[in-house]
Amino acid sequence: MNLIEIPARRGKAARLRQGQSVRIINTTGQQVVDTWAFRADDIAELMSMEHSRVAIGRIIPAIGDTLVTNRRNPILTLTADTSGGIHDTLFAACDRWRYERLGCVGYHDNCTDNLAAALAELGLVPPETPAPLNLFMNIPVIGGNRVQICPPVSTPGSYVSLIAECDCVVAFSACPQDVVPVNGLALLPTEAHFEVLD
Amino acid sequence: MNLIEIPARRGKAARLRQGQSVRIINTTGQQVVDTWAFRADDIAELMSMEHSRVAIGRIIPAIGDTLVTNRRNPILTLTADTSGGIHDTLFAACDRWRYERLGCVGYHDNCTDNLAAALAELGLVPPETPAPLNLFMNIPVIGGNRVQICPPVSTPGSYVSLIAECDCVVAFSACPQDVVPVNGLALLPTEAHFEVLD
Repeated sequence: MNLIEIPARRGKAARLRQGQSVRIINTTGQQVVDTWAFRADDIAELMSMEHSRVAIGRIIPAIGDTLVTNRRNPILTLTADTSGGIHDTLFAACDRWRYERLGCVGYHDNCTDNLAAALAELGLVPPETPAPLNLFMNIPVIGGNRVQICPPVSTPGSYVSLIAECDCVVAFSACPQDVVPVNGLALLPTEAHFEVLD
Repeated sequence: MNLIEIPARRGKAARLRQGQSVRIINTTGQQVVDTWAFRADDIAELMSMEHSRVAIGRIIPAIGDTLVTNRRNPILTLTADTSGGIHDTLFAACDRWRYERLGCVGYHDNCTDNLAAALAELGLVPPETPAPLNLFMNIPVIGGNRVQICPPVSTPGSYVSLIAECDCVVAFSACPQDVVPVNGLALLPTEAHFEVLD
């Protein structure tokens, strides 16, 4: 087992070969992990939530669902989920402008910058900030339309496993949201972990 | 009145000054119109469905809701809607790969290429294909999760009005989907119209 830390409020990326899996662990139980994937042979082909919803016929992926790229090719399949099955595909990654609008003064860590920093460690530049797969994030759709920010339902040590359908780069951000209860009512962003499995 | 046609299966773009409105008319009643907006002073800043859902707190914009860019700035506000209020922000624009996966052989018109062609008429290149505001498209969310393709509920001549919150370029595609009932049970894509109002 080779556990890699996604430090609190920070990002981390890794390369996956086709057939390898990544297990993303909600170490403390209430930490949302924004997740992205890009094809290794063409970083402009990337995991797309708006294309994946068409492919899987639902908003939240379930075990067996294959997420697809902006060219409709399979990229990651959900193979295990002990977290309660609540994730989000509706909300953008947080960014400096989100925190400005929430009233924060000065720089605030954010998932958009974390994606860029995580890919930079691999010598890559994201072509855009795709809408992320927000693992463990709890955004219920009420009455078929209204969306609400709720604390995660996941528990400490629970995890999600994703298998790579092609050689790809995956990136994660331990979301630094501490103004609204994305990461639980304590508003306390923490670290999370992942491991790559052959 | 200066009615501009969005030809069946094609795209069309226009420039809006801040404070101008565009009225998009569902001429035949069952035609979905994919809609995008880009800031005139920086085309990389574009209307984003994933940022707009956070801003408006729902999936489908209602009268008074302001759609925002990928930098969270206001770009278009919905000011009128006689169509029944059913639109979509969940599904990607159709593209060549969508039709390949639906079994179409050879080239099929698609909203992604229509966006590029519409902007090209103004000498512009889209930096990406953002998830569109799919006007009149009926994708109910069932049980808070499952999404389904249903025919539009709009009627002939019904319309949506959007006011520009900044100088911007708007682009429309009369969706050429004729395999699944996005554009009604007749599977017959038609023209639509728009007009710019001072």
